[in-house]
Amino acid sequence: MSTQYIYHDSQNNCYRRPFGAVPINSEVFLLLETTGDAKEVFLELIYFNGTTEKIKMINSIENFNNNKKYYTKITLKEQGVYQYYFSVVLDYSVYFYGNNIQQLGGVGEVYLDNPKTYQITVYKENKIPAWFKEGIIYQIFVDRFFNGNDYGVISNPKKNSFLYGRWDDDPMYIRDAKGDITRWDFFGGNLKGVIHKIPYLKDLGINTIYFNPIFEATSNHKYDTGDYKKIDEMYGDENIFAELCRKAADSGIKIILDGVFSHTGADSIYFNKYGNYNSLGAYQSKYSKYYNWYSFKSFPDSYDSWWGFSNLPNVNELYPDYVDYVVNSKDSVLSKWMNIGVSGWRLDVADELPDEFIRLLKERARKEKSDSVVIGEVWEDASNKISYGNKRRYFLGDELDSVTNYPLRENIIEFFTNRINSEVFKRRIMSLKENYPLENFYSLMNLIGTHDTKRILTEVNEKKILYLCVIIQMTMVGVPLIYYGDEVGLKGEEDPLNRKTYPWGKEDKDILNFYKNIIKIRNGSSILKCGDLEFVTSDEDVICYKRGLAEEKLFIIVNRSNNESKKIVIKEFIEEKKVVDLLTCEDINASDGIVRINPLEGLILSLKNESKKY
Amino acid sequence: MSTQYIYHDSQNNCYRRPFGAVPINSEVFLLLETTGDAKEVFLELIYFNGTTEKIKMINSIENFNNNKKYYTKITLKEQGVYQYYFSVVLDYSVYFYGNNIQQLGGVGEVYLDNPKTYQITVYKENKIPAWFKEGIIYQIFVDRFFNGNDYGVISNPKKNSFLYGRWDDDPMYIRDAKGDITRWDFFGGNLKGVIHKIPYLKDLGINTIYFNPIFEATSNHKYDTGDYKKIDEMYGDENIFAELCRKAADSGIKIILDGVFSHTGADSIYFNKYGNYNSLGAYQSKYSKYYNWYSFKSFPDSYDSWWGFSNLPNVNELYPDYVDYVVNSKDSVLSKWMNIGVSGWRLDVADELPDEFIRLLKERARKEKSDSVVIGEVWEDASNKISYGNKRRYFLGDELDSVTNYPLRENIIEFFTNRINSEVFKRRIMSLKENYPLENFYSLMNLIGTHDTKRILTEVNEKKILYLCVIIQMTMVGVPLIYYGDEVGLKGEEDPLNRKTYPWGKEDKDILNFYKNIIKIRNGSSILKCGDLEFVTSDEDVICYKRGLAEEKLFIIVNRSNNESKKIVIKEFIEEKKVVDLLTCEDINASDGIVRINPLEGLILSLKNESKKY
Repeated sequence: MSTQYIYHDSQNNCYRRPFGAVPINSEVFLLLETTGDAKEVFLELIYFNGTTEKIKMINSIENFNNNKKYYTKITLKEQGVYQYYFSVVLDYSVYFYGNNIQQLGGVGEVYLDNPKTYQITVYKENKIPAWFKEGIIYQIFVDRFFNGNDYGVISNPKKNSFLYGRWDDDPMYIRDAKGDITRWDFFGGNLKGVIHKIPYLKDLGINTIYFNPIFEATSNHKYDTGDYKKIDEMYGDENIFAELCRKAADSGIKIILDGVFSHTGADSIYFNKYGNYNSLGAYQSKYSKYYNWYSFKSFPDSYDSWWGFSNLPNVNELYPDYVDYVVNSKDSVLSKWMNIGVSGWRLDVADELPDEFIRLLKERARKEKSDSVVIGEVWEDASNKISYGNKRRYFLGDELDSVTNYPLRENIIEFFTNRINSEVFKRRIMSLKENYPLENFYSLMNLIGTHDTKRILTEVNEKKILYLCVIIQMTMVGVPLIYYGDEVGLKGEEDPLNRKTYPWGKEDKDILNFYKNIIKIRNGSSILKCGDLEFVTSDEDVICYKRGLAEEKLFIIVNRSNNESKKIVIKEFIEEKKVVDLLTCEDINASDGIVRINPLEGLILSLKNESKKY
Repeated sequence: MSTQYIYHDSQNNCYRRPFGAVPINSEVFLLLETTGDAKEVFLELIYFNGTTEKIKMINSIENFNNNKKYYTKITLKEQGVYQYYFSVVLDYSVYFYGNNIQQLGGVGEVYLDNPKTYQITVYKENKIPAWFKEGIIYQIFVDRFFNGNDYGVISNPKKNSFLYGRWDDDPMYIRDAKGDITRWDFFGGNLKGVIHKIPYLKDLGINTIYFNPIFEATSNHKYDTGDYKKIDEMYGDENIFAELCRKAADSGIKIILDGVFSHTGADSIYFNKYGNYNSLGAYQSKYSKYYNWYSFKSFPDSYDSWWGFSNLPNVNELYPDYVDYVVNSKDSVLSKWMNIGVSGWRLDVADELPDEFIRLLKERARKEKSDSVVIGEVWEDASNKISYGNKRRYFLGDELDSVTNYPLRENIIEFFTNRINSEVFKRRIMSLKENYPLENFYSLMNLIGTHDTKRILTEVNEKKILYLCVIIQMTMVGVPLIYYGDEVGLKGEEDPLNRKTYPWGKEDKDILNFYKNIIKIRNGSSILKCGDLEFVTSDEDVICYKRGLAEEKLFIIVNRSNNESKKIVIKEFIEEKKVVDLLTCEDINASDGIVRINPLEGLILSLKNESKKY
């Protein structure tokens, strides 16, 4: 069977405009091209709530060869993610045209049935503060960063916990024969240590610290909250945290905390399974004021818990008293810490939080601080995420400002380990650009490693490749996040080896200097912070993209090949005499429009007159 | 079949004299009683080397009723353990008379074949120094005793080791899924800590410290020696140890070290399996100077090791270079530490050390210090111990001065947990008295708990019973050993829970005061240190014995019953007006010869005129 010629490209403004996600009440133009034998063409529109509409498209006069163009304009009035595809009716058959199989947007495919859908995200405007969008985040897992006590003393170790003998020991979990963790292990990093290292962070060039949880908890990771209103004793106390916020602010650094609101620890003031707290916990009595925070199947030993871990009982986030405690009351968790100096929250397992809870939390956060941010831990495309059967509303304007951009990390690693080529890399990035509201796209937490992944240097193994990854991270749209220690070459397989201590005194200075240099370039460049993103077609081993703002442009080129030099055509360089690589400050001869790039080289190229400010 | 009447009692001097073990060339009188129909009676003597002699016994004129007495005198010329039994020849049969089934000596049994043998230990005189015989030992597991560093800092923790978060945490082993230890755990006790606590030990009344191993080793127990000539870095260094020896000496306290000479650690300067040492280890090369210390089945991964633990390769103790290194050379291990101030050695797993090695070591130790002692870790009756098929020569005068008296501990615990009665208790003690040379019997390390057993308070569970155990320990012939912490009520199941930290600040003061009181009584009493031991027949729930020296006597009485008072007849008290209990200093009315003892009470009774010195 010969296939009907049909064509639409959601990322080409001849076929759809404006590009990507649009505010409520926007008019969107959509165009489809097909051969002349089509009788009728329809836009099949699916609303966020699942209802559908079939819109007959108008045959344009702008036909070309034997092809005809059909268009329509739709006004999208509802906040939500719209989906669409096209149906082309012939004499004896109907063809469908929808998104490509990977659902990355751009050029689609012809289907005989069950077409994949394109997406138009329709959002309420949500202005995200510039300090966040234009900043650089440094993630700190406190126990592993720096011990600020004299003599290496570890303050207030927990009952029956283990401390590592040396700062550079390999982390490990202490488990029983069943594999359950029997004791927690600590290196002794603390908030005093972070205060001590603020000058280091300032010198590095970051403007935001994101802390893994710091509230009282049994474990070293503290995702098992014991008391939302107390700094863990091993990390410090409220006064030390306030001092940290002040001193960070003095250095222009803002603080984001990890909010773990889908569950608490079983060993908490709220659940109090082990009686360690001086409270009547939900586990202890049905008359506990926390009883309804939790869902017992059979009191007290059978209860709903996070991924079945009995030490992490799930909470009913929308139970009014819980919302009050965490979000709404005068002295709520949110309020307390934001008053002390917190500027944002990273919501742990956002997938497991009800939309309404996130909305309320975001609302309150903005009330507490108009320039605060709320970030969700989401591992996939957050615009069309379905969790537990529900379409999520993360990026429609009322909820998240940003998410953890794990898709970027995956994309970078797959490219540099030769699992995808530069074309796929581009298409994946463009898909995010298409689906995310622009403000959110510019606010993505662009990480290449966290406490939940292998270390980036372990993933790519070579320093030179690390540099290329970092070039992309620092020049891509979004907010780069540096996982503590990545900037000095810390390696590590998965948890717990990705949580080694920062190697004070044993830093890889080459890597550190590379980071400092590129951070300086980014911080000094409004193009890199705010400029548009456009990919330039090149070699399959080469990623090349343009960042632009008004008349200014930067070209980022990286070559993953370890033995082939490549030539890339940049038409903007033709007849320009002065092209400079911002990384090395060396002039590049590219007046023929051809840039030569060596194996494993990365370039950030600027026309000389545009680079005066560096 | 009616059994022939035959009778001998090795512990009754009508039937055998002198009592017990005898020096070389002693004449021993042996007598057997049997009915008149015996034709001939023989003493069947078995020499240490296994050869036998049949000695016809002489019919005595001292017959009684229908019974006849047969006697002989033998001169025992060889060092060793002789065994004997009797054969009684009748017209048509032969009966044998030998030791009782339990082989505890005393009254024996008639056998038709395979009689159990009696034992006569024949030893070379070995004078054991009074400081040891008359002292009290305190056993210290250094990591768990006291951290003498400022701010609780733990010095020089080992690579990839864990430190307990709190001094009062519960010890545990950190194992992998196979059960192997993956990391070692430390509390941070050290030699500085011991120095700090010398006044405490002096006040307690002990005069000897026995240290679990303190040489460099990977583990916390340090039975896996890494370097015999170096104090473990976490514990201190040579200078600190020398200071400790000096300061202990100033307080009249001597030091005994644990010598682990049957194996080394795999992680050692000698074997160097993991390359952690800057030496060419036996594991690394056949050209290592330590290669012949070990026995490889297949180089390098298959080698003889202690109980199959591959981290504890066995040494060939008699390999000349090893003997030289440990014992004989000018700067031998023995010499080095004895010059610094060590007064004795406790030989770990003495069973696994060749007799000749122990003999050489003892010889050298006495040369280094004429008043030094060598103690063996032996769990059973050391006089007739057979290990790996060989009869051992521990207590024949050339080897050990003392052994770990685990039989006493077992005896005490079994009595107080109602598994044996006072008669069995007595017979077991009398068996040791009979088999051990007197000097050794008075030098036994009388322990009721060590790092290899449950804590005594855990075994007996009640404080009142603990007191009774301690009364026996402190009034029995031999040298009491206090396992650190027992004196303040530390509890603990088997390893690792028997190695909890000393609870500074949380001592049970009642128990401590009890210990101090009874230690003072013992230290002040030459009767308790040197007096003879004789059991007094009493109730099955009551242990009663007399300690005597010349005309002085003490009576020790303990009643294990928790609900019955008992009356014990002490004929020496008849008509004596003044009997005093040394424990309470209260007068006891026993002029009718009857002592009333309450449930779970213990008494140390003295005639008033004899107690003037207390």
